[in-house]
Amino acid sequence: MTAASSDILDLDSLLSAEELELRQKVRDFTRQRIKPDIARWYEEGVFPLELATELGELGVLGMHLEGYGCPGRSAVEYGLAAMELEAGDSGIRTFVSVQGSLAMTAIHTWGSEEQKQEWLPRMAAGEVIGCFALTEPTAGSDPASMATYATKDGSGDDAGWVLNGTKRWIGLASVAGVMVVWAMTDDGVHGFLVPAGTPGVTATPIQQKLSMRASIQCDVVFDGVRLGPEALLPGARGLRGPFTCLNEARYGIAWGAMGAARDSYEAALEYSLGRLQFGKPLAGYQLTQQKLVDMLVEIQKGTLLALHLGRLKDAGTIRPEQISLGKLNNVREAIRIARDARSILGGNGITTDYSPLRHAANLESVRTYEGTDEVHTLVLGRHITGLGAFH
Amino acid sequence: MTAASSDILDLDSLLSAEELELRQKVRDFTRQRIKPDIARWYEEGVFPLELATELGELGVLGMHLEGYGCPGRSAVEYGLAAMELEAGDSGIRTFVSVQGSLAMTAIHTWGSEEQKQEWLPRMAAGEVIGCFALTEPTAGSDPASMATYATKDGSGDDAGWVLNGTKRWIGLASVAGVMVVWAMTDDGVHGFLVPAGTPGVTATPIQQKLSMRASIQCDVVFDGVRLGPEALLPGARGLRGPFTCLNEARYGIAWGAMGAARDSYEAALEYSLGRLQFGKPLAGYQLTQQKLVDMLVEIQKGTLLALHLGRLKDAGTIRPEQISLGKLNNVREAIRIARDARSILGGNGITTDYSPLRHAANLESVRTYEGTDEVHTLVLGRHITGLGAFH
Amino acid sequence: MTAASSDILDLDSLLSAEELELRQKVRDFTRQRIKPDIARWYEEGVFPLELATELGELGVLGMHLEGYGCPGRSAVEYGLAAMELEAGDSGIRTFVSVQGSLAMTAIHTWGSEEQKQEWLPRMAAGEVIGCFALTEPTAGSDPASMATYATKDGSGDDAGWVLNGTKRWIGLASVAGVMVVWAMTDDGVHGFLVPAGTPGVTATPIQQKLSMRASIQCDVVFDGVRLGPEALLPGARGLRGPFTCLNEARYGIAWGAMGAARDSYEAALEYSLGRLQFGKPLAGYQLTQQKLVDMLVEIQKGTLLALHLGRLKDAGTIRPEQISLGKLNNVREAIRIARDARSILGGNGITTDYSPLRHAANLESVRTYEGTDEVHTLVLGRHITGLGAFH
Amino acid sequence: MTAASSDILDLDSLLSAEELELRQKVRDFTRQRIKPDIARWYEEGVFPLELATELGELGVLGMHLEGYGCPGRSAVEYGLAAMELEAGDSGIRTFVSVQGSLAMTAIHTWGSEEQKQEWLPRMAAGEVIGCFALTEPTAGSDPASMATYATKDGSGDDAGWVLNGTKRWIGLASVAGVMVVWAMTDDGVHGFLVPAGTPGVTATPIQQKLSMRASIQCDVVFDGVRLGPEALLPGARGLRGPFTCLNEARYGIAWGAMGAARDSYEAALEYSLGRLQFGKPLAGYQLTQQKLVDMLVEIQKGTLLALHLGRLKDAGTIRPEQISLGKLNNVREAIRIARDARSILGGNGITTDYSPLRHAANLESVRTYEGTDEVHTLVLGRHITGLGAFH
Repeated sequence: MTAASSDILDLDSLLSAEELELRQKVRDFTRQRIKPDIARWYEEGVFPLELATELGELGVLGMHLEGYGCPGRSAVEYGLAAMELEAGDSGIRTFVSVQGSLAMTAIHTWGSEEQKQEWLPRMAAGEVIGCFALTEPTAGSDPASMATYATKDGSGDDAGWVLNGTKRWIGLASVAGVMVVWAMTDDGVHGFLVPAGTPGVTATPIQQKLSMRASIQCDVVFDGVRLGPEALLPGARGLRGPFTCLNEARYGIAWGAMGAARDSYEAALEYSLGRLQFGKPLAGYQLTQQKLVDMLVEIQKGTLLALHLGRLKDAGTIRPEQISLGKLNNVREAIRIARDARSILGGNGITTDYSPLRHAANLESVRTYEGTDEVHTLVLGRHITGLGAFH
Repeated sequence: MTAASSDILDLDSLLSAEELELRQKVRDFTRQRIKPDIARWYEEGVFPLELATELGELGVLGMHLEGYGCPGRSAVEYGLAAMELEAGDSGIRTFVSVQGSLAMTAIHTWGSEEQKQEWLPRMAAGEVIGCFALTEPTAGSDPASMATYATKDGSGDDAGWVLNGTKRWIGLASVAGVMVVWAMTDDGVHGFLVPAGTPGVTATPIQQKLSMRASIQCDVVFDGVRLGPEALLPGARGLRGPFTCLNEARYGIAWGAMGAARDSYEAALEYSLGRLQFGKPLAGYQLTQQKLVDMLVEIQKGTLLALHLGRLKDAGTIRPEQISLGKLNNVREAIRIARDARSILGGNGITTDYSPLRHAANLESVRTYEGTDEVHTLVLGRHITGLGAFH
Repeated sequence: MTAASSDILDLDSLLSAEELELRQKVRDFTRQRIKPDIARWYEEGVFPLELATELGELGVLGMHLEGYGCPGRSAVEYGLAAMELEAGDSGIRTFVSVQGSLAMTAIHTWGSEEQKQEWLPRMAAGEVIGCFALTEPTAGSDPASMATYATKDGSGDDAGWVLNGTKRWIGLASVAGVMVVWAMTDDGVHGFLVPAGTPGVTATPIQQKLSMRASIQCDVVFDGVRLGPEALLPGARGLRGPFTCLNEARYGIAWGAMGAARDSYEAALEYSLGRLQFGKPLAGYQLTQQKLVDMLVEIQKGTLLALHLGRLKDAGTIRPEQISLGKLNNVREAIRIARDARSILGGNGITTDYSPLRHAANLESVRTYEGTDEVHTLVLGRHITGLGAFH
Repeated sequence: MTAASSDILDLDSLLSAEELELRQKVRDFTRQRIKPDIARWYEEGVFPLELATELGELGVLGMHLEGYGCPGRSAVEYGLAAMELEAGDSGIRTFVSVQGSLAMTAIHTWGSEEQKQEWLPRMAAGEVIGCFALTEPTAGSDPASMATYATKDGSGDDAGWVLNGTKRWIGLASVAGVMVVWAMTDDGVHGFLVPAGTPGVTATPIQQKLSMRASIQCDVVFDGVRLGPEALLPGARGLRGPFTCLNEARYGIAWGAMGAARDSYEAALEYSLGRLQFGKPLAGYQLTQQKLVDMLVEIQKGTLLALHLGRLKDAGTIRPEQISLGKLNNVREAIRIARDARSILGGNGITTDYSPLRHAANLESVRTYEGTDEVHTLVLGRHITGLGAFH
């Protein structure tokens, strides 16, 4: 069994040599650096911090950004990397997304020249970890009701800010060197850069997770946090700021989820070829083949969809509802595939010796963050019908 | 509501100007010549014979074949035409498939120069209707057990044949000018051309259908049918002959099914925008939007898949299991979509005033012919696992 | 294959001897009087009027009502009869529901003594067919927006009524001897009895149906229809009147749908046992068994549910939301079962030679009338959560 | 929110006062002794041994058995207890099943008088934990291929046994005071009682589980284990022995799974009532209500099914295929329900603060043990069709 065998539709023929090479490089990294230890990290609930600089060297942090030490790769290449990393574990891919699509994109898009130079090169190298504090405890799918508030501290150009509020599900916050924090102000929503160690900031990892245990999500409290005027991201105003970043992240998720799906499929296929039942391989039974085929069909369709989105993105024509479609479909299908894959493994499928149930558990997080199925369904529904049904 | 609005992923951007032009031409034909009368044809159980020459003029009969009066268009163009025609009715698209992918492809691929010159130009023009007699009453999914037999009649080069046997579900047989008949011989399976009016041939349309009522499928009996030596298709031997044609047809089905799906979606969307419930359009409710979105997601994925298959086919690299995947997925999803679309129409959805339930009923035939879900699942399963699970 | 073999859970052990006897009687009727001709009736779009008096003799018209010539059987017995009749055809069961649960129940519950004596005995005998005119063209799932209006014609006790409006999907209206018509008045919704032949009433059968073709549904127009004071159903006021009848009908549907499901299952099982593929019966393959098992599981659960509802109804404790649950579940599952059954039949499944696709088509009507899935889902949702989500 | 509110069909009206009382007692136990600590036990991967004697006092160990200190309750009462315990956690219910349905039933049914007196009273009290060693690493769904072997050790009546082999997924083995071990002999399969501490027995808990972490499953190795003649269970011979016990356990699972489902539903309902989105409770949205309703429908059907099985069991007429149907359906539906419930919880659903994802994870084990979906499907398929499709 090699991964190539899951490419029944010859989708690789749609990729350039450069794209295939990049993919191979990331696939090798996953095989060598993630797969051997992921079961332990997951069981112990540990994010492997040491991977950060290695991922920086691999060139996948902020990889679609140009300048400031960023790799400047295409959207398709970013997608391929996300797919390979999530074939390892959604938690690792999530780190890459938070770092590159959320934190670095925010700074790159709306930061001042000074902010970019200060943070981006070290973030691209994995020396500084970034996080993105948007979600609040009482407003998962409704950022407009944001309660975190930044008040002007003083007046004139030197005026700083005082930040108060609570965020939840903030990836990597407890290990972040810099936080991109979104807060309401008298002048609408703005973004702020909050360096690690700023007094009044507390980030507490959420415990007892049944999903993405090799990653970190935190409750973050901002209690009278004083920030200088230079903390403000000058270019972002309103929810367009964080929403742009979320779209970047969702794009990567659409690819990544297919990586978890493909790895689940391959694990189930390999198991079914080796496991005998009533004297012949499980893979030789109709009920098993039906599962494998249905999985593969959706993996191929989801991958084709991700690639199409990538080409649109590289062409500069992609629209948010297209990304919503990709995120909705690919995560939804990936979770089904991971669950079906797990069902082929019998009793053995419930340990971390096999990846599908871990992937299925991880995808529970992925399905919820950056917009639940319901949110994306209603975004698409509004686009299709011209009628909002959110309320 | 225009059809364009269902292209949420900008798939049209993947088509050339020539392809878009061809599609528009066929779409216009469907709107002008099929949609106005299809409800009546369906209710009355009538195949509109007069369309044959019009479809010939439209250039969609044997459209992917070269020479002998055939249009010589690409596989993608053939697919686009199938999609637009099936947006009208699966029965009409089926006629085009039987004519072009089955009967004409058989003659074009394995016929003698004389056979090609005799039949193909008139078939391309729609002046002669062809049919393809492979399936037998007791062997739907297992052509290898074919019982129709052609015995040598005489000896030497002048020896003709005597044909005996029964075929079932033979599309258009009762109106065909020429039948391509597959029969077992002492030398394996061979194909024969049987002109209309040959003594001993009886074609009886199957009645009381709940599906594809605007098409014709027949029971055909060959009772001591004497054929000259020139009836033999010289190039075909074994099941590779009919299987090649079936693959051609399946390719078109993968496209066509998405046409029925898209038309169902558009009918449901339009209805839901105009129908008020509790004072607001049905389209404004969450439960309706969820259905519409799920339909559109699968239409887009299925169309992307069909287009990918078309590009592979035009590149000459397509493989049978890839077509199996396309047929399996696209018909299965199309039937789900048509059913869901129908559910949006409430009580009004059960008449032929609206297309979705007619499409759903038609697709019951499409799902079965050229290989059921189970057959294609096991074909793919064997490809994936290397283990046959047919028996 | 006998029907008994589908009783894998020994549900018959929950029935009394009297109930089993009644069921056998109706089952025999279905076998002798419905099954032999149903394919023809369906193809020709004909309701077999001659069955009305036979069904009267069988004792299934208004069978749960007491007095006035009605059979006075239990709710469970009524349910069993509905199940057996719908194993024949949903259209026939629908006639029995419209007659007994809708028209006769309305008269029995809210009629004057004179009205009851005039109509009920002849309706119980099947000599007079009743119909129930509630649904309007623009208000399928929202009877409160009723536009049909009855205006007082004159004053005092002798004052009659003038009725104007349009109804749609009115079962049996064109052959009805008496119509129960619901109309808005200055005093809220009221019911009226409109005998056949009353001037100003036009009932036009809806044509070109893809469902319930052996039944009749009509567009009915009331154009200045003058009614005497005796036309008013004295006991009903407001929507509680028609809603009570709808609940009666829904109860019968919950049973009936399982009859269509069981007949579909049995047809598929019998076919799969007799049809050889690759040399062994279809029934011996894993993919076929999986379908058969999943069908049977849902048939058994749905039947158990219907029986439980019947026992609650006979105990006088049943509540509307319980009936909603039964209607929602049993029709939804029945349609899935009929579709799956059809898929076992291969190409042969698309003619009326086999019942499953006809049942599936019929159930499209059943699923919509007396409340769509969405309506019952939201009724139940409101019950569960205390929050209405209709608007 | 109280549990009672999920009884929309008044199923409680089918229970006796005694049954309701027993249920309440177990429900209270779950609320007081399981729910407060289950998240911690689960996270830490700990089976709470201290519960064993408390469950003994509660009267749920071997509760359907008579004599020898066993409670002697009915099958329905056993089912109700299983349901309430699994509303706490599948791992705790699994302990009760292994103890009562597997180990104690084996001893009670096939043990000698001495064996019964030695073990059953202490097992009923929870002082001795039992386990049931049947499954082997290479034969999950096919016990007939058992490789563990017991060889006669000596000759005559005094001859003992030497036991060699490996078992896997043996619940509670590492904490068991006595093991019921099934092994092949020269005379077919036999059962043996192996007390804790017998030399040559090693039980190693399986680590890094993603399911049932508050329970224990072990790899067990028997390496030249010498047993006296009194170790043999005299009454059991062949696979009928273990299969009888498995049927007992499956019966309890059919009930238990509905407990996990109901608890998941109640958690989701409560959350959706309290969680605001766009200013109104999640529970007030159509998409949420649809999920809640679909969950509740299946919970009610599954509970009705379990109760029906219980009544058949108490009547002594239950058959194995009926239990297969219950296990297949109820676990399959429970896992769907738990997953859907989790989806209502948004991001918060991935911690053990809420039960649904834990239940979903647990049910992955429950779905596999005592027969996968596929095994029960094929058991039922064989019953229905008379044709085995296992091979």
